[in-house]
Amino acid sequence: MKQYIYGKNTVMESLKGQKQVYEIYILKSNNDQKIIKYANSKKIPIHYVDKKYLDKKTNNGVHQGIMACVEGYDYFSIDEIINSIPDDKQPLLLMLDGLEDPHNLGAILRTCDAIEVDGVIIGKNRSVGLTPTVAKVSTGAIDYVKVAQVTNLSRTLEELKKKGYWIVGCDLHESQDYRMIDYNMPLCIVIGSEGFGISRLVKSKCDINVVLPMTGHVTSLNASVATAIILYQVYNSRHPIS
Amino acid sequence: MKQYIYGKNTVMESLKGQKQVYEIYILKSNNDQKIIKYANSKKIPIHYVDKKYLDKKTNNGVHQGIMACVEGYDYFSIDEIINSIPDDKQPLLLMLDGLEDPHNLGAILRTCDAIEVDGVIIGKNRSVGLTPTVAKVSTGAIDYVKVAQVTNLSRTLEELKKKGYWIVGCDLHESQDYRMIDYNMPLCIVIGSEGFGISRLVKSKCDINVVLPMTGHVTSLNASVATAIILYQVYNSRHPIS
Repeated sequence: MKQYIYGKNTVMESLKGQKQVYEIYILKSNNDQKIIKYANSKKIPIHYVDKKYLDKKTNNGVHQGIMACVEGYDYFSIDEIINSIPDDKQPLLLMLDGLEDPHNLGAILRTCDAIEVDGVIIGKNRSVGLTPTVAKVSTGAIDYVKVAQVTNLSRTLEELKKKGYWIVGCDLHESQDYRMIDYNMPLCIVIGSEGFGISRLVKSKCDINVVLPMTGHVTSLNASVATAIILYQVYNSRHPIS
Repeated sequence: MKQYIYGKNTVMESLKGQKQVYEIYILKSNNDQKIIKYANSKKIPIHYVDKKYLDKKTNNGVHQGIMACVEGYDYFSIDEIINSIPDDKQPLLLMLDGLEDPHNLGAILRTCDAIEVDGVIIGKNRSVGLTPTVAKVSTGAIDYVKVAQVTNLSRTLEELKKKGYWIVGCDLHESQDYRMIDYNMPLCIVIGSEGFGISRLVKSKCDINVVLPMTGHVTSLNASVATAIILYQVYNSRHPIS
């Protein structure tokens, strides 16, 4: 499946990444020698186009004068993700229950790439998938982080539990301070949707619920922000500074 | 100055907040009794309008069938911010050097409200200010977090240093792990722009540079994500769990 991606960093990361880049579209006035050189060295055809063309093709996205036609984003199965985790690594999965905003998913993939998250699990329905906007916001992380799309999140959690994973939900109710937990075990962190949090069925599968301290007026953090704070806590508890 | 804001949470927070709400615009089919009751109790005129009207007024924003005309967002001076910090609180300021994305600023204000940031400092030029999009993304935090807009960021840092503040820059180069620092002192955390990081002059004023561990392929995190991880570290070092 072919897909169009856009934005300077996204296209550059794509050129460096594993996926095939079929064609590059550059604004006539764009003189980004680095990308042009890179594309030439890989023998990728370059088309010089006008702004109107890029605006239309990217649906008025912030394309920064560059777009590429690339191999589409593949999803992995849960087994493929789990089997790819090195034996000497403590597994870390992230489940997003109903996340809707592509900006949040892109930012989350960026964080996942940064700190050794082995895979992200999203639902097939009512969730954002791997779209060009997600690719752009992820600044290339989409090429490195494995994403699985499943039909039934709570059944997936049950299967993970059978495999020895602990399920940690990030929720406001009946929860412990997120700093109280020892994260040195095979984990799946569950984050809820922007508007409604974790759904009832998925919540019932969580072994531990954690909450971030919040002392102000608003009742929740941005979803990608909350995810990152938890994931960095997991990373820090696994890699303490000496 | 009057300003239009939109979105269910933003309007509701605004009704609960300090700022005057002049008028409410609700989609004819919107039956949100909570907001209607609240508006009636405060004697705020309600206009029932059609979707086209809201789409136009919000520039096709995600208005969720509700918009309000409110008192505009005021900026504070640095002195007003500093003087409002309680004597028994360790001061914490955040400077954003060239942040451009309103989604990032909105998410950052939300984090600032959550964990006792006393004020946010932004530049007058080439930075996003307090716009309706920022208000919406902040889910109301914009009413609680004080923001100062200054013409010269590096001169502002010099003045803060004279007042006993330590300046901590979040930068990739020549930096220590962010977990190595004791944040129990009057602080101004500096975060750079999405594309270019901290500018040279501002960086020269930083007393300490910190970096987040990143072990993957992408070279930076989303700006609102990085800000939140640092701010939560400050909060945690000031409020350790017992």
